Amino acid sequence: MKNTLQNDLLLRAARREKTERAPVWFMRQAGRYLPEYRQIRAKHDFLTMVKTPELAAEVTIQPVDLVGVDAAIIFSDILTVPEAMGMKLVIEEGKGGPRFPDPIRLYTQIRDLKDIDPTRDLKYVADAITLTVDRLAGRVPLIGFSGAPWTLFCYMVEGSGSKDFRYAKEMIFTRPDEAHKLLQKIAGAVADYLVMQIEAGADVVQIFDTWAGILTPNDFRDFSLQYIGDIVRDVKKRTNNRAPVIVFCKGANQSLLEIATTGCDVIGLDWTIDIAEVKALIGDEVALQGNLDPSLLFASEEVITDRVNEIAENMGDCTGHIFNLGHGITPDVDPDRARAFVRAAKAAYQK
Amino acid sequence: MKNTLQNDLLLRAARREKTERAPVWFMRQAGRYLPEYRQIRAKHDFLTMVKTPELAAEVTIQPVDLVGVDAAIIFSDILTVPEAMGMKLVIEEGKGGPRFPDPIRLYTQIRDLKDIDPTRDLKYVADAITLTVDRLAGRVPLIGFSGAPWTLFCYMVEGSGSKDFRYAKEMIFTRPDEAHKLLQKIAGAVADYLVMQIEAGADVVQIFDTWAGILTPNDFRDFSLQYIGDIVRDVKKRTNNRAPVIVFCKGANQSLLEIATTGCDVIGLDWTIDIAEVKALIGDEVALQGNLDPSLLFASEEVITDRVNEIAENMGDCTGHIFNLGHGITPDVDPDRARAFVRAAKAAYQK
Repeated sequence: MKNTLQNDLLLRAARREKTERAPVWFMRQAGRYLPEYRQIRAKHDFLTMVKTPELAAEVTIQPVDLVGVDAAIIFSDILTVPEAMGMKLVIEEGKGGPRFPDPIRLYTQIRDLKDIDPTRDLKYVADAITLTVDRLAGRVPLIGFSGAPWTLFCYMVEGSGSKDFRYAKEMIFTRPDEAHKLLQKIAGAVADYLVMQIEAGADVVQIFDTWAGILTPNDFRDFSLQYIGDIVRDVKKRTNNRAPVIVFCKGANQSLLEIATTGCDVIGLDWTIDIAEVKALIGDEVALQGNLDPSLLFASEEVITDRVNEIAENMGDCTGHIFNLGHGITPDVDPDRARAFVRAAKAAYQK
Repeated sequence: MKNTLQNDLLLRAARREKTERAPVWFMRQAGRYLPEYRQIRAKHDFLTMVKTPELAAEVTIQPVDLVGVDAAIIFSDILTVPEAMGMKLVIEEGKGGPRFPDPIRLYTQIRDLKDIDPTRDLKYVADAITLTVDRLAGRVPLIGFSGAPWTLFCYMVEGSGSKDFRYAKEMIFTRPDEAHKLLQKIAGAVADYLVMQIEAGADVVQIFDTWAGILTPNDFRDFSLQYIGDIVRDVKKRTNNRAPVIVFCKGANQSLLEIATTGCDVIGLDWTIDIAEVKALIGDEVALQGNLDPSLLFASEEVITDRVNEIAENMGDCTGHIFNLGHGITPDVDPDRARAFVRAAKAAYQK
């Protein structure tokens, strides 16, 4: 039996219900900028932490205790899904980001990807969620997440991050049928994965489309957004619309109106758009999450506070607003600045 | 005495005069994707090529002969301006991009930057332009260029490219007065530099703001666009509006309407926005340049042609359109695909 939430601000904001203030959390809040995280990380490699529910739960809860955020987000990685689908994942210390040494370039590789059952293949995530929810004891909601199909596609086809995403682009431009086959497969896995996370106890889920911004608006619609829409509808149907869904498509500001039509509850915004403009464009259909420039956490508390207040003024009132950074927190930020952001966000709208 | 231009499509398009078709050129067209460029580059380091008018002229003209573009753009680098201002510039083979080993972090460094006289300190650029214009003998116009103050500021403060531009952001957020002092200094140098290029024979100039997209719309206005506006007005006044000015602020699609108010003749577009939408937004005030996804040059000629035609259809008619990629050409593109793009662009609107 789940505890009743003592702080359900995030859930109310996501559903555009009345709130006293805007809730605040931020992407990568369980991470390297926290010395307490680095202490644990020094003893275990990254994937071990992701796959050990005890460790994942511990670092997931750290920012709730240490920074005062209004939600926890399960400590994990978007690349666990492709790994579960059968791709070898390598994370070497100090050698750049994670990579797939055997990226997908041939149709046979797409065909050979496993149809996953997340309750079996990603059971460690469900276990980490259940344990975290138990430990949180209703203090704040827990957010589950997944990479969007297009972003996972990029990693799976490139094998790593990339400057120009040559292979991913080559596949969508020259072999669109194969690309769609792969995207469909990923989208099915992501939907199952999110359903599992909600059933394990996640109160909200977020879909991250980190590489949305490298596509033309048309290609974004065809190769990214249609799959996100399928996932949102499928997840909501299968879980009886129990958990609000946040969709964050970084750099896709040209397509915000279309993102709203996926049926998501919240749209995540990066910092390159004025939230007032988005509100004027989209109206009251969805809640908005964001959108402080993450680099502001290198500035003074005073400047951080001014900029947080500016976002609140642009938003007008706190209904349907969730404070967040426009991208993950930078690892070398001083935790005091993260706390300053959280303090300012909690005080905004309270005049 | 300058030759009369045999192909003045670019000039007419930039001024929104009647044209038979849209002219085409592309960013980094004189570059590594061409084997003929690599042959010369194998014998000389990059900066030697930039600083030797004979070599610069040769590679500048290569894409006119080899690819059939409607304009040449002088072979140079945006970082020659900070170098002339007194910053040591290092370009090491195979060691990532160019860098400044002594980046600007202190006010004394800003104060100590030289007030340049481009006719003396960047004379090699003027000489390269004069020689190129002479060699072109009126076949196509020559484009001069400069980095925008904000983009040069980023390089000068970071010392190199960056993922999060921590130091540049830190300066504008915590020491805005110093940041403005530096931006003013750079803007003055850029204006003088562009005037010199026009006087040396450049028919058109382009201002590149490669890092426009990392700023919020407000910060973009304060720390980038106001300086671009100053430069555009100053250059036009001092050169009697002789050369059209193209402003390309990559990733600043939220600010296109404001970019149009700088008085520039042409706005360069990246590929993440529909050109029809821009036309509807801005109207007939300025010409538009762009905006094919550079990754399309990894696709087949058929796909390239389809996408070029799609841009032409979205644009509606060729008045005030200059075909270009939405960013520099990727070095590993097959030159045949670049030629396919140029062929398709020349054939578009001709139905």
